[in-house]
Amino acid sequence: MEKESSQFIAEATTTQNMEGEADEESNPLNQPLLKRSRTLTSNPLAMVGDKVSYIESLDYEINENDLFKHDWRSRSKVQVLQYVFLKWTLAFLVGLLTGLIATLINLAIENIAGYKLLFIVHLIQKKRFFMGFIYFTGANLLLTMVAAVLCVCFAPTAAGPGIPEIKAYLNGVDTPNMFGATTLIVKIIGSIGAVSAGLDLGKEGPLVHIGSCIASLLGQGGPNNYRLKWRWLRYFNNDRDRHDLITCGASSGVCAAFRAPVGGVLFSLEEVATWWRSALLWRTFFSTAVVVVVLRAFIEICNSGECGIFGSGGLVMFDVSNVTIKYRVMDIIPVAVIGIIGGVLGSLYNYCLHKVLRLYNLINQKGRIHKLLLSLTVSLFTSACQYGLPFLVKCKPCDSSLSETECPTNGRSGNFKQFNCPDGYYNDLATLLLTTNDDAVRNIFSTNTPYEYQTSSLLIFFALYCILGLFTFGIAVPSGLFLPIILMGSGYGRLLGLAMGSYSNIDQGLFAVLGAASLMAGSMRMTISLCVIFLELTNNLLLLPITMIVLLIAKTVGDSFNPSIYEIILHLKGLPFLDAHPEPWMRNLTVGELADAKPPVVTLHGVEKVACIVDVLRNTTHNGFPVVDDGVVPPLGIATEATEVHGIILRAHLLQALKKKWFLREKRRTEEWEVREKFNWVDLAEREGNIEVAVTSDEMDMYIDLHPLTNTTPYTVLESMSVAKAMVLFRQVGLRHLLIVPKYVAAGVPPVVGILTRQDLMPYNILTAFPHLARTTGGEKEN
Amino acid sequence: MEKESSQFIAEATTTQNMEGEADEESNPLNQPLLKRSRTLTSNPLAMVGDKVSYIESLDYEINENDLFKHDWRSRSKVQVLQYVFLKWTLAFLVGLLTGLIATLINLAIENIAGYKLLFIVHLIQKKRFFMGFIYFTGANLLLTMVAAVLCVCFAPTAAGPGIPEIKAYLNGVDTPNMFGATTLIVKIIGSIGAVSAGLDLGKEGPLVHIGSCIASLLGQGGPNNYRLKWRWLRYFNNDRDRHDLITCGASSGVCAAFRAPVGGVLFSLEEVATWWRSALLWRTFFSTAVVVVVLRAFIEICNSGECGIFGSGGLVMFDVSNVTIKYRVMDIIPVAVIGIIGGVLGSLYNYCLHKVLRLYNLINQKGRIHKLLLSLTVSLFTSACQYGLPFLVKCKPCDSSLSETECPTNGRSGNFKQFNCPDGYYNDLATLLLTTNDDAVRNIFSTNTPYEYQTSSLLIFFALYCILGLFTFGIAVPSGLFLPIILMGSGYGRLLGLAMGSYSNIDQGLFAVLGAASLMAGSMRMTISLCVIFLELTNNLLLLPITMIVLLIAKTVGDSFNPSIYEIILHLKGLPFLDAHPEPWMRNLTVGELADAKPPVVTLHGVEKVACIVDVLRNTTHNGFPVVDDGVVPPLGIATEATEVHGIILRAHLLQALKKKWFLREKRRTEEWEVREKFNWVDLAEREGNIEVAVTSDEMDMYIDLHPLTNTTPYTVLESMSVAKAMVLFRQVGLRHLLIVPKYVAAGVPPVVGILTRQDLMPYNILTAFPHLARTTGGEKEN
Repeated sequence: MEKESSQFIAEATTTQNMEGEADEESNPLNQPLLKRSRTLTSNPLAMVGDKVSYIESLDYEINENDLFKHDWRSRSKVQVLQYVFLKWTLAFLVGLLTGLIATLINLAIENIAGYKLLFIVHLIQKKRFFMGFIYFTGANLLLTMVAAVLCVCFAPTAAGPGIPEIKAYLNGVDTPNMFGATTLIVKIIGSIGAVSAGLDLGKEGPLVHIGSCIASLLGQGGPNNYRLKWRWLRYFNNDRDRHDLITCGASSGVCAAFRAPVGGVLFSLEEVATWWRSALLWRTFFSTAVVVVVLRAFIEICNSGECGIFGSGGLVMFDVSNVTIKYRVMDIIPVAVIGIIGGVLGSLYNYCLHKVLRLYNLINQKGRIHKLLLSLTVSLFTSACQYGLPFLVKCKPCDSSLSETECPTNGRSGNFKQFNCPDGYYNDLATLLLTTNDDAVRNIFSTNTPYEYQTSSLLIFFALYCILGLFTFGIAVPSGLFLPIILMGSGYGRLLGLAMGSYSNIDQGLFAVLGAASLMAGSMRMTISLCVIFLELTNNLLLLPITMIVLLIAKTVGDSFNPSIYEIILHLKGLPFLDAHPEPWMRNLTVGELADAKPPVVTLHGVEKVACIVDVLRNTTHNGFPVVDDGVVPPLGIATEATEVHGIILRAHLLQALKKKWFLREKRRTEEWEVREKFNWVDLAEREGNIEVAVTSDEMDMYIDLHPLTNTTPYTVLESMSVAKAMVLFRQVGLRHLLIVPKYVAAGVPPVVGILTRQDLMPYNILTAFPHLARTTGGEKEN
Repeated sequence: MEKESSQFIAEATTTQNMEGEADEESNPLNQPLLKRSRTLTSNPLAMVGDKVSYIESLDYEINENDLFKHDWRSRSKVQVLQYVFLKWTLAFLVGLLTGLIATLINLAIENIAGYKLLFIVHLIQKKRFFMGFIYFTGANLLLTMVAAVLCVCFAPTAAGPGIPEIKAYLNGVDTPNMFGATTLIVKIIGSIGAVSAGLDLGKEGPLVHIGSCIASLLGQGGPNNYRLKWRWLRYFNNDRDRHDLITCGASSGVCAAFRAPVGGVLFSLEEVATWWRSALLWRTFFSTAVVVVVLRAFIEICNSGECGIFGSGGLVMFDVSNVTIKYRVMDIIPVAVIGIIGGVLGSLYNYCLHKVLRLYNLINQKGRIHKLLLSLTVSLFTSACQYGLPFLVKCKPCDSSLSETECPTNGRSGNFKQFNCPDGYYNDLATLLLTTNDDAVRNIFSTNTPYEYQTSSLLIFFALYCILGLFTFGIAVPSGLFLPIILMGSGYGRLLGLAMGSYSNIDQGLFAVLGAASLMAGSMRMTISLCVIFLELTNNLLLLPITMIVLLIAKTVGDSFNPSIYEIILHLKGLPFLDAHPEPWMRNLTVGELADAKPPVVTLHGVEKVACIVDVLRNTTHNGFPVVDDGVVPPLGIATEATEVHGIILRAHLLQALKKKWFLREKRRTEEWEVREKFNWVDLAEREGNIEVAVTSDEMDMYIDLHPLTNTTPYTVLESMSVAKAMVLFRQVGLRHLLIVPKYVAAGVPPVVGILTRQDLMPYNILTAFPHLARTTGGEKEN
């Protein structure tokens, strides 16, 4: 008899082949079993600049199967020490590399932008204004083009700040293609190009992403295809350790961006991370300490003049420590006004940016050329405004107390740019516009210069950066949100300072600082991390109390209008981010009711036929399956219809078992040594890119013993549990699957009633299935 | 027939009548049912200065019973607004009152200690040394006596810093008598007395306790017996809201102690709190902002000379901002040396303090008189040393660059005290010893004074404060650990600075600062909060990188020897603190096995006979009972032996039902309106002090419908769950009881297999029942 060989191929790619847990309506196996028409769908909103992809969850929960327990028990003291040593070494390396790359980016930007600006100034001095415009615009277009082409062609995920995606990753969402080597390189070069091009965006957000990429690549031993196969590194090939590393990376990034070590740690803590442990706090702190040491070392080197035009800067970027701050209790009024306006403007910015991003989304979806053209248009508009607008304002005479080298200046930096003015005069708007963004902030933060800027110049500056801030963020280049908001905020702060001039004895430079802080709080809604970042940025501790008040007021005002900008972007990208607090109406629904709205759960037996497993894998998209045993309850000896929950098995592990052909001829339980010969816990913990499996029809009749691969300690809830409390459990413990067990104990009751995943707990999805819940009144969202 | 009336009195006092959940071996009802001899016992270690009391857990979990759900659904928008408004008002008041009381304490100490010292200096100037000694010692003894008598007689819990108890409270342990009005008053007066008496202790720890007391009292509307019955306040009579308030209070306390608003928030976050939400971060931040504003306002008032001798100080306490810090990469070596020595000394201090506290424990147990005598002995010894030792050192000549008013000084403060020296000379040891602790720290931190202190003086200072630091902490007065450690650390730091003099160009004052930081990290094992506290304390941001490195090294070194000082004290006090990470061997045990080692669980029926409930209450000490229904599984219609888990009911709610005589003549389920007539959710949430119940024999035959009072959504685990993962759930979600449900579904299986409480998860208790687990090898404690 000829052997028939039927081929079955199951693929599991992290990027798209493996579908999300929730979209089960396309499931042919389950379709006839559907009891109700209401099914949960995933959020339909598309990703900014990209289509929403099927997104998996991460395995932050410890998968306590037999292999793990054996591996864990057999770990020697030496291996434990190896692990601890490597953990700290990696934290060190993350800090070191982030510091080095941040320095590199800084140097490149300062030098590229510096030579560009010097050349333009040179032309302007010769009154060749039109040539200056051509060169300025041309250089900017070229730099933007480099950044945009790289982003569009090689790494679409490198566009934008990357912070929302990191936030989602640390929440347990496996955001695809975020931490690859290509992304890292494109982000570095793109960031240099985009910032050098004078676009209204910062390198701060991208640095956070760069830090995270470095951390992820270090943890897995290099880029996907060229991974270091070092034995020690295998401890880190799991989602839990990668989570810790990426947290370190994000903190290092913020630290490198603002040279704010404590601020970096707090930023991760307050804004980025979902879970936090004090041990992690400490390791993160170590990484940022390393970053600071690296930055300081480079500043020493650069101060000796070996870094090209770049040189100054110091450990403190926007230093206002030389101001003696005198404020009295009555100064609380202007401070409160700054806070309120900052909150209103911040939430208005969030609102408008949301609209712009939706519009850009439509444009970007049309194709790569459209993305590119959009970026170039924005660059052209920016260049034209930055070059053209300073011609509109009147030249101001230099203050007689300043020396000739101080005012007017024609160098790259300097607070009083001559531009088109005669000698002895300076153009205050050119000081703010025809310079790098960092210098612009430094100039507008400058203290003890109450008469430097005209109201009209500041108004133009503020209006321009409001427009640019809205229209630059969504283009396909790496772009941070911090600097645009700081520029906007400092503009309105300084304007407010001018307006209040006589009523308050707070310096105008400080008004600019407070304005920037208030707008940040109004848009990003952070408090303590922003406070510390501003503290470390401005190096003035006496500013602390008023900064605190400004931040608190701005956040309160902003919160009453709309959510934070990162939440808006998360929502736009359709990432299933699990919120900290359940919605109030979730108390009115039990998980049992939620499970009833889904197709019935697919369970497997402890020793299962291969054909059945193949069938289940082919016909469902679930990533986890409860494993159930029929049998006898040992102490009671009840034989009739007893079933036992053995645990939950992951799709990836089923595929591994098929791939390794771990088949049995007869239906039996295996011994521990058998499984240890085939499998290794470290292999199982790794998130494999692609698994292809072929099963012959002979093998289809064989059996697999799932027991040793099953996580025997899944978290469970009774079916009477409210969705609100289940969600608290799901998030607090960092789950991927939550089993629902029956509240009834009787013969014939299924031992597992349902299974909850991240998508099932998304408020949008629940409301789609249970629209009446939105109308239930009462109760506030806890916070 | 005469009616018999049997009386039954059940008492539930939070302090001692209600026993801990774990000591069930004294349970006469369960005794015959015991299957095994192994039972769990509570930790036998006694409390420092007091006997260990039976300690309850707190209800941080939301008790979702019918009443709660109704109350929650019927909350109107106005009530929600009331709640939110009050939440912020209370946070404001906590900050305000903590700020005011901290100022009061500061003023009192500065003035009492100031006049005392001025009088002594006056006597010394007249060479009446012996009279000086008598007055000095007498005044100190008197002040110590006031503090000690108050503590011993009125509020034993006011002794010590209170931070470990607050830490335990926020972990879910109902530490008894911690937050009362008496405690608050004793703590305030005692702290003033003890610090003015010149004892080697600080007001910092007590201020944290004071802040928490204020928060707790505000939340419950005043002292226990005179509570404000304001309707709005009822929202806060539950453990969850009290938890948030006390977190605010603790942060405000640290902020008031060090005038470090950000440091205060981070201290709560890193050291005190177990759970954290970003909304709480924000409210806490608000409280500390208020504290800073209050402190600043008072400093302005005091600077105008209206606060007696008190006056200087400023918003920054130990200001070293005037130092220009120049350090190069090579300075990392002395910095690392400081860190290593700090870590070793810190862990040595922890070790010795542990021994001393155990010794003191024995003395304190002998009675009040012994406690008092111990305190007075320490005070006498301290005074004798502080007064006598300066005579041993040689007088130093004043530097010629200093004016006569600067050196020597005879005022209360000043860096060069004349003491017993001739004119033109000063006594450097008297500068450090014969002053308040705050001034001593300021003097030793003083920068640009490389030749001020002799090595011998610093050695004496360091040795003295090592001894005092060990023997002062355990006496029965309010005492903080921060300042003793800062004093010790600054002494050794300055010594190290002297020794390294020529090798490093770091200022000796900075060496003292770094020494203090390293010893703090070596003993308390905090990182980021200490870093920020030191930053805000010293007002010098450029110190940040080296402070970070010192802290990291010191903590690493310290951690390799023993746990942090707060953990040691927690352990000594026998508080069942739930650690963040499960012990490695907990993976080798299932909760089912753990439950088998305990007496069988006592379950109640949904509609239960009064006699049965009374019996259960009288004969068990459990605080929660699973409620189980027999019946039919609705969808399947299986009538035979089906049981249903309905939820869990608290002892307090059973007592309430008995007290309110909510009895039914027949066995039936009640309607919703019936229960709403009798009970109110807010009443149930409150932690009542004492409930007395009398039940007649007639009533004994009646029924109670437990359904509406039952928490229908308890968290559960399968019996196959490992203890490690159950503990993660228990801690992360903030539970009091965790139900264990069977993994088998079959007729005849009990629907609830067991119940886990905090005591059951304490490693010590588990190891008592399963001693072999301690020997299981492999695996590291996750961190």
